[in-house]
Amino acid sequence: MNRTYSYKKKINSPPGSLVYTGTKTSKKPEITLISYSNRHYEEKKINDQSKLEEILPNIDTNKGVFWLNVDGLSEPLILEKLGTAFNLHPLTLEDILNPHPNQRPKYEVYDDGLFITVKHIDWNQEQYNLIYEQLSFVLKPGILLSFQESEENVFLPIQNRIKTAKGRIRTMDSSYLLYALLDSVVDRYFITLENIGDVIETLESNISEKNNPKIMREIHRLKSSITFMRKSTWPLRDVVNTILRSENDYIDQSIYIYFRDLSDHIHQVIDTIDNYRELLTGLMDLYLTSIGNKTNEIMKVLTIISTIFIPLTFIAGVYGMNFKFMPELNSPWGYPIVWVIMILISIGLVIYFRRKKWI
Amino acid sequence: MNRTYSYKKKINSPPGSLVYTGTKTSKKPEITLISYSNRHYEEKKINDQSKLEEILPNIDTNKGVFWLNVDGLSEPLILEKLGTAFNLHPLTLEDILNPHPNQRPKYEVYDDGLFITVKHIDWNQEQYNLIYEQLSFVLKPGILLSFQESEENVFLPIQNRIKTAKGRIRTMDSSYLLYALLDSVVDRYFITLENIGDVIETLESNISEKNNPKIMREIHRLKSSITFMRKSTWPLRDVVNTILRSENDYIDQSIYIYFRDLSDHIHQVIDTIDNYRELLTGLMDLYLTSIGNKTNEIMKVLTIISTIFIPLTFIAGVYGMNFKFMPELNSPWGYPIVWVIMILISIGLVIYFRRKKWI
Amino acid sequence: MNRTYSYKKKINSPPGSLVYTGTKTSKKPEITLISYSNRHYEEKKINDQSKLEEILPNIDTNKGVFWLNVDGLSEPLILEKLGTAFNLHPLTLEDILNPHPNQRPKYEVYDDGLFITVKHIDWNQEQYNLIYEQLSFVLKPGILLSFQESEENVFLPIQNRIKTAKGRIRTMDSSYLLYALLDSVVDRYFITLENIGDVIETLESNISEKNNPKIMREIHRLKSSITFMRKSTWPLRDVVNTILRSENDYIDQSIYIYFRDLSDHIHQVIDTIDNYRELLTGLMDLYLTSIGNKTNEIMKVLTIISTIFIPLTFIAGVYGMNFKFMPELNSPWGYPIVWVIMILISIGLVIYFRRKKWI
Amino acid sequence: MNRTYSYKKKINSPPGSLVYTGTKTSKKPEITLISYSNRHYEEKKINDQSKLEEILPNIDTNKGVFWLNVDGLSEPLILEKLGTAFNLHPLTLEDILNPHPNQRPKYEVYDDGLFITVKHIDWNQEQYNLIYEQLSFVLKPGILLSFQESEENVFLPIQNRIKTAKGRIRTMDSSYLLYALLDSVVDRYFITLENIGDVIETLESNISEKNNPKIMREIHRLKSSITFMRKSTWPLRDVVNTILRSENDYIDQSIYIYFRDLSDHIHQVIDTIDNYRELLTGLMDLYLTSIGNKTNEIMKVLTIISTIFIPLTFIAGVYGMNFKFMPELNSPWGYPIVWVIMILISIGLVIYFRRKKWI
Amino acid sequence: MNRTYSYKKKINSPPGSLVYTGTKTSKKPEITLISYSNRHYEEKKINDQSKLEEILPNIDTNKGVFWLNVDGLSEPLILEKLGTAFNLHPLTLEDILNPHPNQRPKYEVYDDGLFITVKHIDWNQEQYNLIYEQLSFVLKPGILLSFQESEENVFLPIQNRIKTAKGRIRTMDSSYLLYALLDSVVDRYFITLENIGDVIETLESNISEKNNPKIMREIHRLKSSITFMRKSTWPLRDVVNTILRSENDYIDQSIYIYFRDLSDHIHQVIDTIDNYRELLTGLMDLYLTSIGNKTNEIMKVLTIISTIFIPLTFIAGVYGMNFKFMPELNSPWGYPIVWVIMILISIGLVIYFRRKKWI
Repeated sequence: MNRTYSYKKKINSPPGSLVYTGTKTSKKPEITLISYSNRHYEEKKINDQSKLEEILPNIDTNKGVFWLNVDGLSEPLILEKLGTAFNLHPLTLEDILNPHPNQRPKYEVYDDGLFITVKHIDWNQEQYNLIYEQLSFVLKPGILLSFQESEENVFLPIQNRIKTAKGRIRTMDSSYLLYALLDSVVDRYFITLENIGDVIETLESNISEKNNPKIMREIHRLKSSITFMRKSTWPLRDVVNTILRSENDYIDQSIYIYFRDLSDHIHQVIDTIDNYRELLTGLMDLYLTSIGNKTNEIMKVLTIISTIFIPLTFIAGVYGMNFKFMPELNSPWGYPIVWVIMILISIGLVIYFRRKKWI
Repeated sequence: MNRTYSYKKKINSPPGSLVYTGTKTSKKPEITLISYSNRHYEEKKINDQSKLEEILPNIDTNKGVFWLNVDGLSEPLILEKLGTAFNLHPLTLEDILNPHPNQRPKYEVYDDGLFITVKHIDWNQEQYNLIYEQLSFVLKPGILLSFQESEENVFLPIQNRIKTAKGRIRTMDSSYLLYALLDSVVDRYFITLENIGDVIETLESNISEKNNPKIMREIHRLKSSITFMRKSTWPLRDVVNTILRSENDYIDQSIYIYFRDLSDHIHQVIDTIDNYRELLTGLMDLYLTSIGNKTNEIMKVLTIISTIFIPLTFIAGVYGMNFKFMPELNSPWGYPIVWVIMILISIGLVIYFRRKKWI
Repeated sequence: MNRTYSYKKKINSPPGSLVYTGTKTSKKPEITLISYSNRHYEEKKINDQSKLEEILPNIDTNKGVFWLNVDGLSEPLILEKLGTAFNLHPLTLEDILNPHPNQRPKYEVYDDGLFITVKHIDWNQEQYNLIYEQLSFVLKPGILLSFQESEENVFLPIQNRIKTAKGRIRTMDSSYLLYALLDSVVDRYFITLENIGDVIETLESNISEKNNPKIMREIHRLKSSITFMRKSTWPLRDVVNTILRSENDYIDQSIYIYFRDLSDHIHQVIDTIDNYRELLTGLMDLYLTSIGNKTNEIMKVLTIISTIFIPLTFIAGVYGMNFKFMPELNSPWGYPIVWVIMILISIGLVIYFRRKKWI
Repeated sequence: MNRTYSYKKKINSPPGSLVYTGTKTSKKPEITLISYSNRHYEEKKINDQSKLEEILPNIDTNKGVFWLNVDGLSEPLILEKLGTAFNLHPLTLEDILNPHPNQRPKYEVYDDGLFITVKHIDWNQEQYNLIYEQLSFVLKPGILLSFQESEENVFLPIQNRIKTAKGRIRTMDSSYLLYALLDSVVDRYFITLENIGDVIETLESNISEKNNPKIMREIHRLKSSITFMRKSTWPLRDVVNTILRSENDYIDQSIYIYFRDLSDHIHQVIDTIDNYRELLTGLMDLYLTSIGNKTNEIMKVLTIISTIFIPLTFIAGVYGMNFKFMPELNSPWGYPIVWVIMILISIGLVIYFRRKKWI
Repeated sequence: MNRTYSYKKKINSPPGSLVYTGTKTSKKPEITLISYSNRHYEEKKINDQSKLEEILPNIDTNKGVFWLNVDGLSEPLILEKLGTAFNLHPLTLEDILNPHPNQRPKYEVYDDGLFITVKHIDWNQEQYNLIYEQLSFVLKPGILLSFQESEENVFLPIQNRIKTAKGRIRTMDSSYLLYALLDSVVDRYFITLENIGDVIETLESNISEKNNPKIMREIHRLKSSITFMRKSTWPLRDVVNTILRSENDYIDQSIYIYFRDLSDHIHQVIDTIDNYRELLTGLMDLYLTSIGNKTNEIMKVLTIISTIFIPLTFIAGVYGMNFKFMPELNSPWGYPIVWVIMILISIGLVIYFRRKKWI
């Protein structure tokens, strides 16, 4: 995984200070305010911070669900303003701005809302690693705030679904919107895992053919990716289960079945991840065995050739000696007899190797 | 395991939409409605969807137990109709239609019934892997719905048992029918495991004889199969235990002892699976050691032959030199003495190797 | 472990049908009815099934403790009769008749009694594996039923203790008898483990001497045996702990301290098993290292001999060339100088190897 | 890790006796008393023990927060005085003076305060290991005592933050001060882990280039360091969680959110540590495979050269024999034909090796 | 570990029978009765069993704490008498007499007292293994009984501390005495671990120097020792924690803090043990890698020498052939040119090896 984060940026500043510690600083924040209900849909893009202050007072949760999506975190000032407007705790703002790769999915309940942060994960085939970004949600009755670092809006499909009134989303409240967004994140995990699964399958079928040392590195990288996904998914399950167990006012009882379904999907993701881990461990074993087998095969060829020719060469060496008195040398049958002996020795050794099943 | 599933089919459709994501799409759905009680047995086959609507209103749970078995899931429309008729939640229908290999056995309680989904697993000796399909059950007082993807009806033995009134099934209610179906699924696991056990046994007795690299691959595949079974069995235990712990109206108290027995059988399945896992790990170790031993043996032969003949060849080489003044060459005893020396060296080395226990 | 069981015998029969699935079918069942109290002891052997019916009605728990021991399970009819007489559940009878190797020790509470099944385990030194058989107990107030498959009565020592009124057994009730029988089973585990411990010790002292590949197989088999014992002991602990935690009427409060002691012994068995597992893993590592070391040693000898003689042979080869103009050949010092050079090279290489600590 | 501790110093003295068991004995204790509130800040350095007694009575918690920092533990007498003044339990004093490397972070509640001890950890790049020291805190309403062994004051940044009134620290009570100090300790863990992460990254990119055996040792040392950090962090999480769960008077409810945030950071530290552990295990596998691959490559070169030249040398040996009757020797085509044969053999073998993909 | 125990001694005797199963049978039991309070100290040695009966009735817990230490367990009769005098359960007496190596530390509460058994462990450097013995304690209000097998009194330091009134022990009750004895046992664990730590350190610095196969055996033995200590310490933690959680009358509330401190020390012991386990695993990996590296190095030397000289020897062989028509042989430049070619080949190969970084 590329290091996209440096903790040192923040060190020695007091806790709760607002500094964006991620790397996607080029992205200018884009704020979208969507309000919808059974009957209406409205969407406003806010590119100018100053306009933010004009619009915020107009939010009236009686009129339907309000969804404020902040895309790009490079300007902490916007967060500060939102924090004041929606009464967010400084530590919540700090968490939103702090996309540490090991920042685990997290769930915090406040008196007037709840805060969730998760990772959005994609597989980058070219670079052979995962791309992730941190998503944060603040749910209040009738209002959902969402925050993303990304250069492209990952919530676009949901936005379109609301716009076109597909499914039941327009008839439900803000907690269903939260569910829908989390569900789209988990769906993306499935896609990411299918992509990784394809890579593993390719690796598996190649493992005995191309025996290059790079395979081990690829397995190593895939394992790291899988481990990273696991780290991001396990706590997410806890988050959703805690939501399910907790009695709270922000999530309607009728929505619970959806969160239960989400929890079930997360379980499937974890099972798939565990499955891939075992597959990769198995592949590593297969690869190491194939190396061992290859060494064995090479050894066998060397042994067979050496074992056959070393005695023959010795015999040839003997009759290459220059002793004056070597009766065999003068016999006319000497040369053919030596050949016969040498051929017999070779045949004998070949039979011996066959018995040992080395050939 | 063959990939029989693609998640991508479903992505970007809102949660709860009915799309069959499995691969057994050729099978035309066959619906069987069985009604039975202590005194009567009736069976209707419905091949035409339109007839479905005629029959459904006739279900009267006072007359006995009604079992509606849907065999083949390629037409989501049927499910939609059944969903409306039996008041099933859209997410339940989605689960029935979604036979993801990592869809874990699952248990959902609704106000008027309970939903269970499990995997039916078979061992395919020719392809050397597992065949599985997803089975779903909806239990309501007096009514059991069952859903299967399969090309052959896996519930046929139970159906026959009801028809012939074998055992106590005709005298019991619909929750006993659910138990009987789940029990037949778990019995199938035992058969599958015995088949895998036979394969492992064959492997074990072959491991030192045929030393081909394919063994490692076979162990790898068996391990994956075993892992898959484990993934399908563990949550099933939780499902049954949750049923046992929960207070519900759908399952009669007198049936609990049967579910407890089922839970015990699942435990045995899991123990057998764990046993096989350890056996396979042990086999892998055995195989790797046997490779190591083979390398050792080859090395030994090479070393012995080389070590004996290399010095002899050197001696022969020395007396093959063409120096004018080599007194040994002219001595009539030169040649026999060299032979004696060479034989003594060989004998010495053989004794040395014997002491080292290499021969 | 030998396969002594086939699940396929039972498949497709409805749950609760009485079929003996074990292999010890030659043994004719022998039934012993022992009744004892502080003052009397009575023992009846029943070899004829029909007599069973005469005796059963005579059991009067006011007169003392009644112990009915069934030795041999090949005739399900007897069990059926006992089941009717003592009001046993069909599933209990099925469990008694089903000695699956992975049938874990199990505990079932009924309204009028409790049912326990455990494994009796012995080490067979000749066949180098474990022999086990399933023991089942039904405890009712004043009555204990015990069932065994075995060809020899494993409860004989307890029977003798009762007969001779040794220890406190004659003064206690039927739950103490249950404890005494379970305790004798666990004591047998200690003996079995000591036997296995002796085998491991022998293996440990042999591991570097006889380096044959069979050792790995022996470790593998011992590991399987140990795993099997672990599987049979862990749930037994749970069984005893559940008895201790549960409030029931069949076991007197004063007997609890004995069951606690039994639980402690089971803990010791498990600790010993875990200890042996680690020892065996350690032995495997030792064995693999000793193979590695052996390969190393062989390699060293080969390398030393080759490295010394290959250059010498080359030199001899050079002066074996037949070039017309080779001034060295004609010099009278040629031959001795070549010898000096060759000896110097050997000495140099020997010193080099000594420095490398290869010799 | 260097051994900086000897338990033997203390043995046979009764529990609770005050002996400093650490190694940083050269440091003369320096005591700093800081008192601050929203409006004032005061700092006194006490280098003379006797002055301690003058100052202590002046502490009046109504005037604001009092923070007494003891830097250097070589004089147990000072601790005894503080113990008497602040009513500390002898075992608490013993814990403060006992910086055992395996002294785990610990939390003790007394009637009038709470005691926490943690490890401060730094990475020493030159010595390639961790430097740690023990920090202890005693929190009482309005008063915080802190103890450190260190030669440099690790709390200086916090001290400065208070002095300059940066952040909200001046407006909060003594439990926030405790939080701020613990937070600075955990922040230091992040820095330490980033340093270790850099070392791992360097190692990872070097692993196939420089193949020296030292890499294994470096991985071994890093693993030990990581394990040590893990041992110091896991219990810290428990400590903070226990604080969060416990109902106590020393920590204000409004501070709880900060401790929750701290707990979350500790989680991140643990996740990073686990991540590094897996990375290091992966690196070890990579390294071992690269050794295996190297052996293979060496073997291949040896095999190819030997296998090509051994038969050729044999042929040359044959025609070096001195038999009188060797017709080939007299043929004018003998020599060129032998060359052709030898070249053909070489080409054949090269083709064979290419097919086997060894070249 | 030496086998110092045989279970077979006891088998077939009814539970609760008093047989000493240990091996330290030569030690004649020595009984010491110490009574002390704030003001007095009294010590009586009882070597004659009959005197035991005279003294026991004199114990009056109003006068202070009574500590009866039994040193040597070879005479079960003494235990029987004490059992009657102090109303000990037969199973308790059996536990005291049964020093099975896997007898885990254990805690039993009776109506009028509590029973604890732990292991005292020492490192024996000469035999390179652990020496242990079982210690048992019975605590009653005002009275502590202690039992040891040992040939030397392991409680002597505590005895002296009481005699000299060092620390607070004389002012406390019998439960503090229990704490002090357990604390001395745990302190001994630290010493034992420091000794083992020294051995590990020596091993670590030797691992690459002396590469003898014995190292693996030593690691194996150390691992067994460490595992044994772990087995004896883990349950001890549970024992102490259970004491802390339980509400009982034998241990004064004010003593709880000492037991909490003891629990903390046990935690440190366990952490140290875990640390050593990982260190030993790391050492094993280091050792195996160093073997692998050594094989590699040997292979390299062999390959380099062979690869250089095999082609040269072939060339020499070619010109050693006796063909009549070999024009090179007659050329005056033949011999020097061959030398030049051979030197060029050697140089070329050396350069090749340098590039491959084998030299």
